[in-house]
Amino acid sequence: MKFNQFAVTLPAQDQQILELQKIKIYPTDLAQYSLAQLVAHVYRHFFPDYRSPEALTDRYQRLLIDPETDLATYLTQIDQSVDQQAFYNVGLQLLGFLTPRDFRLNDPLTAMTSMGLPFVAASELDFTAFTTAVYQLLVTRSQNGLLMIDNLANRGYYQVNFSVSERQRHLIFNGKVQATFDVSELIREIVYVESDQDTDHDGQRDLLQATIIRPRVKDSFTKLPALYTANPYFLGTNGAPMNPVDQPLTVKASGDARENPDQFDQFDHFAPDPVTGQTDDPFARAETTISSSGDNTVVLSDFFLARGFASVYAAGIGTRGSDGIRTCGSPEETLSTIAIIEWLHGDRRAFTDRSKQQEITAAWCNGQVAMTGKSYLGTLAIAAATTGVAGLATVISEAAISSWYDYYREHGLVIAPETFQGEDADVLTDECFSRMKDAGDYRRVKPFYQQKLAEMRQDQDRETGSYNHFWDLRNYRNQMAQVKCPVVSVHGLNDWNVKPKNVFKLNQDLHALGKTHKVILHQGPHIYLNNFPSLDFYDLINLWLTNKLLAVANNADQLFPDYLIQSNRQADRWEQPTAWTAATTQRFQLNQDFTGAPSPASFRDDGSQAFQASGLSGLGWEQAFMNQDPRFAANQIVLKSAKLQQEMLLTGRPELHLRVKSSADHGLISAMLVDFGQSHRLTPRPQIVAFDARQLGYQGPLETTMEFAPDAVSKVKLIAKSHINLQNRHSSAINEPLSSDEYVDVNMALQPTYYHLPAGHQLGLIIYATDMGMTLRGQNDLVYTLDLTQSTLTLATPSAKPAHI
Amino acid sequence: MKFNQFAVTLPAQDQQILELQKIKIYPTDLAQYSLAQLVAHVYRHFFPDYRSPEALTDRYQRLLIDPETDLATYLTQIDQSVDQQAFYNVGLQLLGFLTPRDFRLNDPLTAMTSMGLPFVAASELDFTAFTTAVYQLLVTRSQNGLLMIDNLANRGYYQVNFSVSERQRHLIFNGKVQATFDVSELIREIVYVESDQDTDHDGQRDLLQATIIRPRVKDSFTKLPALYTANPYFLGTNGAPMNPVDQPLTVKASGDARENPDQFDQFDHFAPDPVTGQTDDPFARAETTISSSGDNTVVLSDFFLARGFASVYAAGIGTRGSDGIRTCGSPEETLSTIAIIEWLHGDRRAFTDRSKQQEITAAWCNGQVAMTGKSYLGTLAIAAATTGVAGLATVISEAAISSWYDYYREHGLVIAPETFQGEDADVLTDECFSRMKDAGDYRRVKPFYQQKLAEMRQDQDRETGSYNHFWDLRNYRNQMAQVKCPVVSVHGLNDWNVKPKNVFKLNQDLHALGKTHKVILHQGPHIYLNNFPSLDFYDLINLWLTNKLLAVANNADQLFPDYLIQSNRQADRWEQPTAWTAATTQRFQLNQDFTGAPSPASFRDDGSQAFQASGLSGLGWEQAFMNQDPRFAANQIVLKSAKLQQEMLLTGRPELHLRVKSSADHGLISAMLVDFGQSHRLTPRPQIVAFDARQLGYQGPLETTMEFAPDAVSKVKLIAKSHINLQNRHSSAINEPLSSDEYVDVNMALQPTYYHLPAGHQLGLIIYATDMGMTLRGQNDLVYTLDLTQSTLTLATPSAKPAHI
Repeated sequence: MKFNQFAVTLPAQDQQILELQKIKIYPTDLAQYSLAQLVAHVYRHFFPDYRSPEALTDRYQRLLIDPETDLATYLTQIDQSVDQQAFYNVGLQLLGFLTPRDFRLNDPLTAMTSMGLPFVAASELDFTAFTTAVYQLLVTRSQNGLLMIDNLANRGYYQVNFSVSERQRHLIFNGKVQATFDVSELIREIVYVESDQDTDHDGQRDLLQATIIRPRVKDSFTKLPALYTANPYFLGTNGAPMNPVDQPLTVKASGDARENPDQFDQFDHFAPDPVTGQTDDPFARAETTISSSGDNTVVLSDFFLARGFASVYAAGIGTRGSDGIRTCGSPEETLSTIAIIEWLHGDRRAFTDRSKQQEITAAWCNGQVAMTGKSYLGTLAIAAATTGVAGLATVISEAAISSWYDYYREHGLVIAPETFQGEDADVLTDECFSRMKDAGDYRRVKPFYQQKLAEMRQDQDRETGSYNHFWDLRNYRNQMAQVKCPVVSVHGLNDWNVKPKNVFKLNQDLHALGKTHKVILHQGPHIYLNNFPSLDFYDLINLWLTNKLLAVANNADQLFPDYLIQSNRQADRWEQPTAWTAATTQRFQLNQDFTGAPSPASFRDDGSQAFQASGLSGLGWEQAFMNQDPRFAANQIVLKSAKLQQEMLLTGRPELHLRVKSSADHGLISAMLVDFGQSHRLTPRPQIVAFDARQLGYQGPLETTMEFAPDAVSKVKLIAKSHINLQNRHSSAINEPLSSDEYVDVNMALQPTYYHLPAGHQLGLIIYATDMGMTLRGQNDLVYTLDLTQSTLTLATPSAKPAHI
Repeated sequence: MKFNQFAVTLPAQDQQILELQKIKIYPTDLAQYSLAQLVAHVYRHFFPDYRSPEALTDRYQRLLIDPETDLATYLTQIDQSVDQQAFYNVGLQLLGFLTPRDFRLNDPLTAMTSMGLPFVAASELDFTAFTTAVYQLLVTRSQNGLLMIDNLANRGYYQVNFSVSERQRHLIFNGKVQATFDVSELIREIVYVESDQDTDHDGQRDLLQATIIRPRVKDSFTKLPALYTANPYFLGTNGAPMNPVDQPLTVKASGDARENPDQFDQFDHFAPDPVTGQTDDPFARAETTISSSGDNTVVLSDFFLARGFASVYAAGIGTRGSDGIRTCGSPEETLSTIAIIEWLHGDRRAFTDRSKQQEITAAWCNGQVAMTGKSYLGTLAIAAATTGVAGLATVISEAAISSWYDYYREHGLVIAPETFQGEDADVLTDECFSRMKDAGDYRRVKPFYQQKLAEMRQDQDRETGSYNHFWDLRNYRNQMAQVKCPVVSVHGLNDWNVKPKNVFKLNQDLHALGKTHKVILHQGPHIYLNNFPSLDFYDLINLWLTNKLLAVANNADQLFPDYLIQSNRQADRWEQPTAWTAATTQRFQLNQDFTGAPSPASFRDDGSQAFQASGLSGLGWEQAFMNQDPRFAANQIVLKSAKLQQEMLLTGRPELHLRVKSSADHGLISAMLVDFGQSHRLTPRPQIVAFDARQLGYQGPLETTMEFAPDAVSKVKLIAKSHINLQNRHSSAINEPLSSDEYVDVNMALQPTYYHLPAGHQLGLIIYATDMGMTLRGQNDLVYTLDLTQSTLTLATPSAKPAHI
């Protein structure tokens, strides 16, 4: 396992000394110390949890500096230098590595090299080299993936060596804020932020409940930045029923769907703002209520609590304890999301309870906010960024939607997120409308809510799947020019819930506008990647937030790679390309460069009954379909390249041009780009490396580390897919007529990828129509015919065109 | 879902009032209150997390007492009584149930009845009835499975209503100790207990590291009982390699294996006890070191931390930080386990660090200790109980071994725990010898340890599998007469790791000696059952520990059922038979009551190559074997009864009598008793009911609730199995000669069960030899022949003999 590390720098020697003194690993009166005394001082500080000299000696005796000698003995022998091998043997043991399992005492450096751990090259460490070695060791990643300095903090280093007031200030080491704050006694409070909106039309401005969890700080000069997560699921979900999906495709009337006169902005009218009186005591005490929502936090926020960042959670309009109704992706939802930031930044009022008698300010906050979260949570972070709201310093957005059309629709078709067949904006709205859980509250809002939900069902238009005004309002990319804060995106290259197109297009748009966008792509599906030992994710985010929220000049913009992409061939290889595309493209003729079907090639789309009979899930069907299960073989055309003679890297969006005809005046085409070839691919999900391996702060919660591992041999893997309605050949908004049995040309941009196709494998293309896991799946019984001589696949790849393709 | 509740009582009315006053739900000056005022007082106290009157009113408005009226309105209307339906509508909402999902506002009692929640029958609640209703509601289980009073505590009830010193005393309500103690700031300390033994032969008494986590108590009159978990895995494991298993059965020399002169007690010699000096300061401060082992606790202990019980963990001899070597189940291990109790009880010395300069007493402890834990952890609790050590007040032992022979052997055969083929005492010893992780420490002990490990490999005797002196030393049931404390056992009826025979025999022996033994049997494999909403496990244990460790007279012995057995047909049905056997037995002739094979019936035991070729795991093989996979059909005889006309309950140990011959002078027989019939059986493992559903103390850790659910349809399920060496027909210790092709009679007691075999199903018996998941599995290629006319199956069952069997 390689412990990759991107968020680390090695400053000049004098700076190293200053920083080591600041964290008290080096004494302030350094000049009084011989090297031997200094070494003893340093090691003593490496064991904050051994308080008596005798206990410390016993501990030293358990560490070997070579196969025969323990550290206690060695410390009595140091004179002018420290032996390099002795230093790193002890260092590796301190980092949690075991001998002989992880390294050999007579050659620690070989293991360090293979694990990617840095070391000082000199064989004898004098004061200068020792200083660098100590500095570097403290910011080296340990066996549990945390830095040594983090593990020291978790063992009580700051509790032992720092005063209470020193622990309430943001301490910076190596450009990153350290875990000095006490998390054993946190303040938990709930406030009600007053919105300008009245989305439930009750004549009152919506009050929005926010939960704040923060370290108790008595030093009034210390102000905390906030990590804010807008989480519509925070106060529970309703188990809303799905829409029916066993319905056939139908013919659409031609025209621009955005111009449909029936479409209107669902929330275009608001009640006038009522006047709210000021109270006599505008700065009431904060702790009016205690969170009953427990520790329903995200782990990234836990990591930063001990680093002096407040965690702020809000579920938003229409959730339990708040006013308003859910609107799923609408501008009203975005405004309610940023209301919390406006309060944190001092630009909006909040109250201690819903009676609005006591105003409360976020006096503890430094006004700098970052938004975090995955999926819907990360989506709302993107939404907030597009407003340019003051106080939002950055967003760390994971697996986020950048346009809701790209979540529930594609190219004129209804397309479900993986495993959520039948979900749509109405379902998610109803799922998150947790006001329903308070019977007395729901009673008041039910008629208005049900009316609006019915309107949404109409407006989202599952009949045509076209891009209309409803979806245009929910396309955050329309507002990219307003983004003021730098954005970090994390996304799984195998995320078929929120598909990678969402982050790809966001990246294109932000870069086109010259804005900062850092992108981390992993090999997982719709998951967090915090706990991968192969990547120093926490440190990267720490570097980033220390720069953006605490204004520390730490070179974060340069150190944080523009792209960090996990290899599909080796989980601990993180590549840093300069772009998520390639300067060169290669075009393949489907009738020449691929084999498997004659041209013209036909297939019948009548697999719905076989699918129903199979009892397979959508995912099970997809696996069977890619493995050319005979039950579905008539519903597909499978094309394969020759075996590759050398590895080929596919990056960006593969583009498919097809000349196709349908046996009717409507139709759809789906395509999968796949990797055919027997090999041990990575597991689809990360596997547990070590249970409860590491702590997030002194006496903080525990985290299990996970990583992808080589899986059992498989024959095929999905690289990318796409779907298109043949009536939307040029635009998802423009519905065009289709004539039966008449060829049309369609261009399909597949989902983006970054894929190393190994030598010996074959590039595959599966052309089909109904996708049981994603499209509507009623019986269509149409025949499609492809003119392969007029069909091509274009790939962005830096690889030379393989000889056999 | 039925919320079963066993640990609750309803005291007399005056006692109800006194207890309600003690927890401050009722005011002390009760006589001054009108009913309306009292009701207002009670509801106000139900919302400790709403501190302003306005916030409280808003909260009341969210609760409905009927479809049209909220609680705020209703409270203004109360005069001489409270409407029963109003009370329980609000009560259900307070318990976390939702309307209309879980109950209907116009008929709450129907839902309460079906969920098993108690209520007062009067339609109008006057003072008396209201008092009972409030008292009962507080100890009623909520949607997350905790009592309402527990959820109140988790929402800060005691922080709001009790002083700091009041929160540092054990508060009893309804016979159970309440969560008043503050868990946000815990004391974590490590001490070194001095043993009398010197198991690593270094001339020094073994020091044993113990980690203590306890609430900070300033009130010196409050002494804490301790929940002690002896956990050999606590400080890490080594990934020790397994023994080879692809070996054939061999012929044993005849005789009593216990008399083998090569067998000796591995640790019969100890170094003399050295004299250790007393220090000048024998009562040193406790917090000499901070636990670096993090929160590696068991959840039951977490639950009791807030209830004023200390958590104590020790990994034992041969683990990291301690002296000695691992000995797996030996008397030396038992002595090292109870050394911690002796210190907690004031009968043994401990030191602040390994230098032994500062003695430390457990002055905070009331001297009363309970041991808890699952598997090896629970096993050591049983081991400790057999010593009768002073201070051990009870043990709560889950999935525990009661004789190591019943873990690694059976009836003269080497038998592996499920999924751990090749494991044995030597492997587990090496796995837990975590001193290996400290290179400097391991260096000193390695030669002696390796020598002892080699001796153990010899003594455990994988050659014969017979019961010898080594195993006799590791049979805790030899010491049952010394047990002084009452024992609670929890075990899975489908636990094929630690097999149910361990708890069954323990139960027989303890009952034969007239000792208290409470048994809870669930439908899981080798798991904890803490988080099942269908059982009030925490409350039962709370009732028990409040009685045993805090000496509160709460009728625990009577209230705690002798047997609580989860039904295999319905997860939320917990039965309370008076014995784990039946007074009546039924004997079935295998040639008459079963069909499937003629008599004599033969099978060949040559499946090893087919198993290897299949690539199946042991578990996969077992499933295939039970489903009569053609690859293994020649290796089995499958007998089936007729379809049952009515359900039949099997309890205790099924007994199989077989007349059998082997084609050689050695041989083994395995048998599975199975349930044939298509049905939705329970899932093998509990499924998640609600993620992070409940908190263990105010700001304490969260727990996910889980429960078994009906699974997809299956055809067959294992009820019980057994294995026997034909050379051990009368005793596991006595090896007898076997003649080839000559019938012998063998009696096999299968693992105990408690199984409802449904009407329409068939009782099945699969007779075979090599068990790929459990026995040695080398190629034997023997033929076995059964005389079914002289073979019987005897079942303990209270059911009448079904007509068709």
